[in-house]
Amino acid sequence: MKSLHNVQAHSFASDNYSGIAPEVLEALTTANGGHQAAYGADEYTALLDDVIVKHFGSTATAYPVFNGTGANVVGLQALLPRWGAVICAATAHINVDEGGAPERMGSIKLLPVPTANGKLTPELVDREAWGFGNEHRAQPLVVSITQTTEMGTCYTPEEIRALADHVHARGMALHMDGARLSNAAATLGLPLSAFTTEAGVDVLSLGGTKNGALGAEAVVVLNPDALVGGAEALPFVRKLSMQLASKMRFISAQIIALYEGDVWLNNARHSNAMAKRLRSKLEEANLPGLSFTQATESNAVFATLPDGIADELRQDFHFYDWDATRNEVRWMCSFDTTENDIDAFAAAIKQVWA
Amino acid sequence: MKSLHNVQAHSFASDNYSGIAPEVLEALTTANGGHQAAYGADEYTALLDDVIVKHFGSTATAYPVFNGTGANVVGLQALLPRWGAVICAATAHINVDEGGAPERMGSIKLLPVPTANGKLTPELVDREAWGFGNEHRAQPLVVSITQTTEMGTCYTPEEIRALADHVHARGMALHMDGARLSNAAATLGLPLSAFTTEAGVDVLSLGGTKNGALGAEAVVVLNPDALVGGAEALPFVRKLSMQLASKMRFISAQIIALYEGDVWLNNARHSNAMAKRLRSKLEEANLPGLSFTQATESNAVFATLPDGIADELRQDFHFYDWDATRNEVRWMCSFDTTENDIDAFAAAIKQVWA
Amino acid sequence: MKSLHNVQAHSFASDNYSGIAPEVLEALTTANGGHQAAYGADEYTALLDDVIVKHFGSTATAYPVFNGTGANVVGLQALLPRWGAVICAATAHINVDEGGAPERMGSIKLLPVPTANGKLTPELVDREAWGFGNEHRAQPLVVSITQTTEMGTCYTPEEIRALADHVHARGMALHMDGARLSNAAATLGLPLSAFTTEAGVDVLSLGGTKNGALGAEAVVVLNPDALVGGAEALPFVRKLSMQLASKMRFISAQIIALYEGDVWLNNARHSNAMAKRLRSKLEEANLPGLSFTQATESNAVFATLPDGIADELRQDFHFYDWDATRNEVRWMCSFDTTENDIDAFAAAIKQVWA
Amino acid sequence: MKSLHNVQAHSFASDNYSGIAPEVLEALTTANGGHQAAYGADEYTALLDDVIVKHFGSTATAYPVFNGTGANVVGLQALLPRWGAVICAATAHINVDEGGAPERMGSIKLLPVPTANGKLTPELVDREAWGFGNEHRAQPLVVSITQTTEMGTCYTPEEIRALADHVHARGMALHMDGARLSNAAATLGLPLSAFTTEAGVDVLSLGGTKNGALGAEAVVVLNPDALVGGAEALPFVRKLSMQLASKMRFISAQIIALYEGDVWLNNARHSNAMAKRLRSKLEEANLPGLSFTQATESNAVFATLPDGIADELRQDFHFYDWDATRNEVRWMCSFDTTENDIDAFAAAIKQVWA
Repeated sequence: MKSLHNVQAHSFASDNYSGIAPEVLEALTTANGGHQAAYGADEYTALLDDVIVKHFGSTATAYPVFNGTGANVVGLQALLPRWGAVICAATAHINVDEGGAPERMGSIKLLPVPTANGKLTPELVDREAWGFGNEHRAQPLVVSITQTTEMGTCYTPEEIRALADHVHARGMALHMDGARLSNAAATLGLPLSAFTTEAGVDVLSLGGTKNGALGAEAVVVLNPDALVGGAEALPFVRKLSMQLASKMRFISAQIIALYEGDVWLNNARHSNAMAKRLRSKLEEANLPGLSFTQATESNAVFATLPDGIADELRQDFHFYDWDATRNEVRWMCSFDTTENDIDAFAAAIKQVWA
Repeated sequence: MKSLHNVQAHSFASDNYSGIAPEVLEALTTANGGHQAAYGADEYTALLDDVIVKHFGSTATAYPVFNGTGANVVGLQALLPRWGAVICAATAHINVDEGGAPERMGSIKLLPVPTANGKLTPELVDREAWGFGNEHRAQPLVVSITQTTEMGTCYTPEEIRALADHVHARGMALHMDGARLSNAAATLGLPLSAFTTEAGVDVLSLGGTKNGALGAEAVVVLNPDALVGGAEALPFVRKLSMQLASKMRFISAQIIALYEGDVWLNNARHSNAMAKRLRSKLEEANLPGLSFTQATESNAVFATLPDGIADELRQDFHFYDWDATRNEVRWMCSFDTTENDIDAFAAAIKQVWA
Repeated sequence: MKSLHNVQAHSFASDNYSGIAPEVLEALTTANGGHQAAYGADEYTALLDDVIVKHFGSTATAYPVFNGTGANVVGLQALLPRWGAVICAATAHINVDEGGAPERMGSIKLLPVPTANGKLTPELVDREAWGFGNEHRAQPLVVSITQTTEMGTCYTPEEIRALADHVHARGMALHMDGARLSNAAATLGLPLSAFTTEAGVDVLSLGGTKNGALGAEAVVVLNPDALVGGAEALPFVRKLSMQLASKMRFISAQIIALYEGDVWLNNARHSNAMAKRLRSKLEEANLPGLSFTQATESNAVFATLPDGIADELRQDFHFYDWDATRNEVRWMCSFDTTENDIDAFAAAIKQVWA
Repeated sequence: MKSLHNVQAHSFASDNYSGIAPEVLEALTTANGGHQAAYGADEYTALLDDVIVKHFGSTATAYPVFNGTGANVVGLQALLPRWGAVICAATAHINVDEGGAPERMGSIKLLPVPTANGKLTPELVDREAWGFGNEHRAQPLVVSITQTTEMGTCYTPEEIRALADHVHARGMALHMDGARLSNAAATLGLPLSAFTTEAGVDVLSLGGTKNGALGAEAVVVLNPDALVGGAEALPFVRKLSMQLASKMRFISAQIIALYEGDVWLNNARHSNAMAKRLRSKLEEANLPGLSFTQATESNAVFATLPDGIADELRQDFHFYDWDATRNEVRWMCSFDTTENDIDAFAAAIKQVWA
């Protein structure tokens, strides 16, 4: 197959636009050759267990899956009886970006709550955490939070702990969509366990794809007691949810390549730093009418622009509107975004104002 | 990541035990670098369209997905209203190997029919193709066949044409699970279109993984008029079924690497030849009590063995029972199975009899 | 079976607390005896068709079902492809009172919108009517409104027409939950068709139970062109949704008994009048701290009370909190609520203030 | 509403063609009047609990539902995790007559087994009771039997006990579709508990409709320990399955009217006797080419007829083909079938041969 694209061009559209980190590609080569048992009974998936325990503690077990939607819907199903519902931020990926998969594939009712910054609080949870035991109400048995959030913000360990305590006290479980978990660790300067296992998260969707994998995520069970049907639930739910890879060694290898050393953290630190760099340059430029709408606590910058600016910038740079009704855009950095990319983009933005 | 496995060892357990064909691994590297739009709006997915049209004709469109179960459940959903059912062989992958995904994720009732060799016929279809218009009966609106079958047998184009005519005359659609479609082409010595598009298949699950991909399959719509909800159905169904890859360029690149030239065919011819080689050697040896239970028309050999033989062989070779109640085993060859592998295995089998 | 209850006692809890109107009970007796074909092929279900056409016009067809949740979930499924979503008021019965049945049984994502009075407007619809064609978003293809609403308010025909035009212009369909449709007709002083068929409603859940039936509702298709899968969809969806009655003559007879003459209207007028009577008496009493939170446009009165009042009243009268966090209660009247019931209750309320 | 039908005419089509037994109609009147709490918090549903305990023992709890399909799908869901499957006879109502509701509404895979007479045995169960723990196979965790069967045959208590022991030893649960449970009691001459609770059945669908109710069935939990999610499962599953009646007092009253005394048994004895009478008369007549295909152990007679006979009889009598490909018909008797009906039908049959 011939190359069809410019291997130097980077956009600010999505961290999914990036490719495969070199360490991941190398791991695919290493895991290749010979035969390995399918569906997870291979040497690399066994090694992944060790890597996961190192990061998340001895109760943790990883179940590799294909993508983030799959990880979320598998994990949530395993936490819920047939009558369960999930409280989430209105902006949560499960609510707005998964094509209704939680409802249709997981038979799960979502109870979305509006938030200012993508983050739930105990008070916000309580807007939907009621009606327990009332058969007329889909039972709110799980709270799902996203770390870092879809708005680029980051929960502190204390905030997560407070949510976990609140949730557990009401007989609910805490689920975390960690598609960008590594970015949170980089922002917080903490090990992964500090704001997951130790903060009371029960089941985690651990991201790999946005961090440099070709396509690899994992459902990580941190608290097996929280699973409906017990620890045996996960393999069955993963399979019937069409998320069991036959040549799983290659999914596991990707996650190992990222998480056995510091690749995950370096990649996250870098993408976070690029977002900070963009924001700093624009803040320094003090552009009239440009306002930042969210704290920049991961690899995204959210801003509102004067009329027409976004379209002018799009002649040379690709990025998405977040809320077109108020000229809000999202600028996303990736592990492979370069300082040059940022500087050129910041210069172009300033040029529009000039 | 360090290597953990013997890159020379091959088993006879499953074509899913094999790794990545070198052309596929190279394509991943080629597709890497720079940014490409996510979710299929990339250059490689565009190229895949051309490759698919070359093989399946101008009406064909490919929708890459992660795995075979996903391809089947997405394709079947797109062919069925909410009240639809699928007639299939009792041995079909959708019936016995997908953990209930068609029923649970696709809300599809299966109407399995026992067969002698994994192949449906118009007469067998008619055992379940009744009750049209009767609201008490889930409506049999699709017939799903597997090519080559789970029993290693291969439909001729004429057999498929007869099924398609029969099915279409009753207002049903014809679905083909082509996880091993390439093996069928190698057996038949025909282009892929000859026993798919031209034989009346409406929607196809096109296999890549067993043929040398890391993990890549595609739903290929051959007859868009057969889709419930029209051509727009597929993207939505794929997304809500959790089968939409974010970095899709790498799924598409795998399928391109196999199907833009002859890799798919060479790999299939080779695995078929290895199965034939194994069968020939054993037939020549004329081992008492060893009987072949299916024609060897692809990359699998099915045989019944005297008591105890299978376990003795398993001390050195890995393979699966097919029907343990009658000592039936399945020996599966892959694109990377070598002549030496076959010869060593055949010799070992003969040794047990010696 | 002996009588176990006080046949004179009435509460203000729910119109579901009432029993069977005498005309309905008589119709059950009339429809009894002899054999009649099951599942709707009987003389009474045939007659129901005529009754429905008389009220809703020549395009209307009724499909009797057991209950309101069933009517809603059957009707919505018939209007939606697998990827569809439904915009509704956050207070809609489908969103808060059906135990997640739309999501779990119908595989439908709901897109709830907060409202002040239970009523949607084109502007409120537009808060969720976006993302058409985007596979990541469950497609908002139906708007569901409730007439009269769960807040006791009533849409005018003009409001419904404006919604229908807005909805249809965007390729969506309009569904109406008419569990209390008769109350709306009584309030508006208009025939049923004036604010359903003629106002652009596509599919209606027609209520019987709250109006005096034992248990009888119907999905009424007003615009068969709006159904996904065409007119044949309804019987299949009703059956697979477990809402097809075997002895359907008795479901149909109940609806006939209400709707062939004026029983439906008289019952609705009466329950509306009782709510108005209660409100008038309390308004006249001018009780400090008692505020009415919704217009009384049907058979319900919503009010907020000073602390402690509700519990004191509950020693003698049964009714529900609507929003306990702000002392809001709902007082519901039924077809069998008497003027004496109202006067006694109003007197008791005034007594609490005395 | 005027009467539209001949209240004397009876057919042999279905026991669903019959109307309401007089005791049931009277109970509806008794339960009427005044207000009663909705959704099961009424006096009659409380009484039903006592009636059920009397018949099925102190562990039994009844959950009234609308219809048989609803009872089956609710009961099966409550017995199964998301990955569960149900072994049943190929002729089971859940497999052939429920429009795919178990699969679509319950997300349940069925594993049908062909039988000679509608009855499963431990040996037949074992044809599908395998693959435990294998994530690729929907887990066979429930066996569902029908008493009396769809073929009119009746399990003995010993047969049920043997199945229960077999099933329980494998970690599965035993479900019974008892739409015609009363007919079995009449045939066996035993109390209901003797072949349900005492024989090891875990969850029962208790029929009322075919026995003289307007429309009333119940899920009866005999062994709450068998429920996934515990005893709280049933109310939630019933509600989200759209099977919770608002005016439940009238559903409960129907079942009470049948089961508090001997109405259920008398009705069943009568319909059984009518089937026996028909069979006896035809056996005595010794009609060439008429063969009985099943034992007559309840209220149905199955027979094959010479070509053309069925159509000739249908000029005056209504009944269904069972298997048209071999001229097999089903003649069904009801609680209201009279001796005159039988004698006239038998005479007509003999007349055709004359």
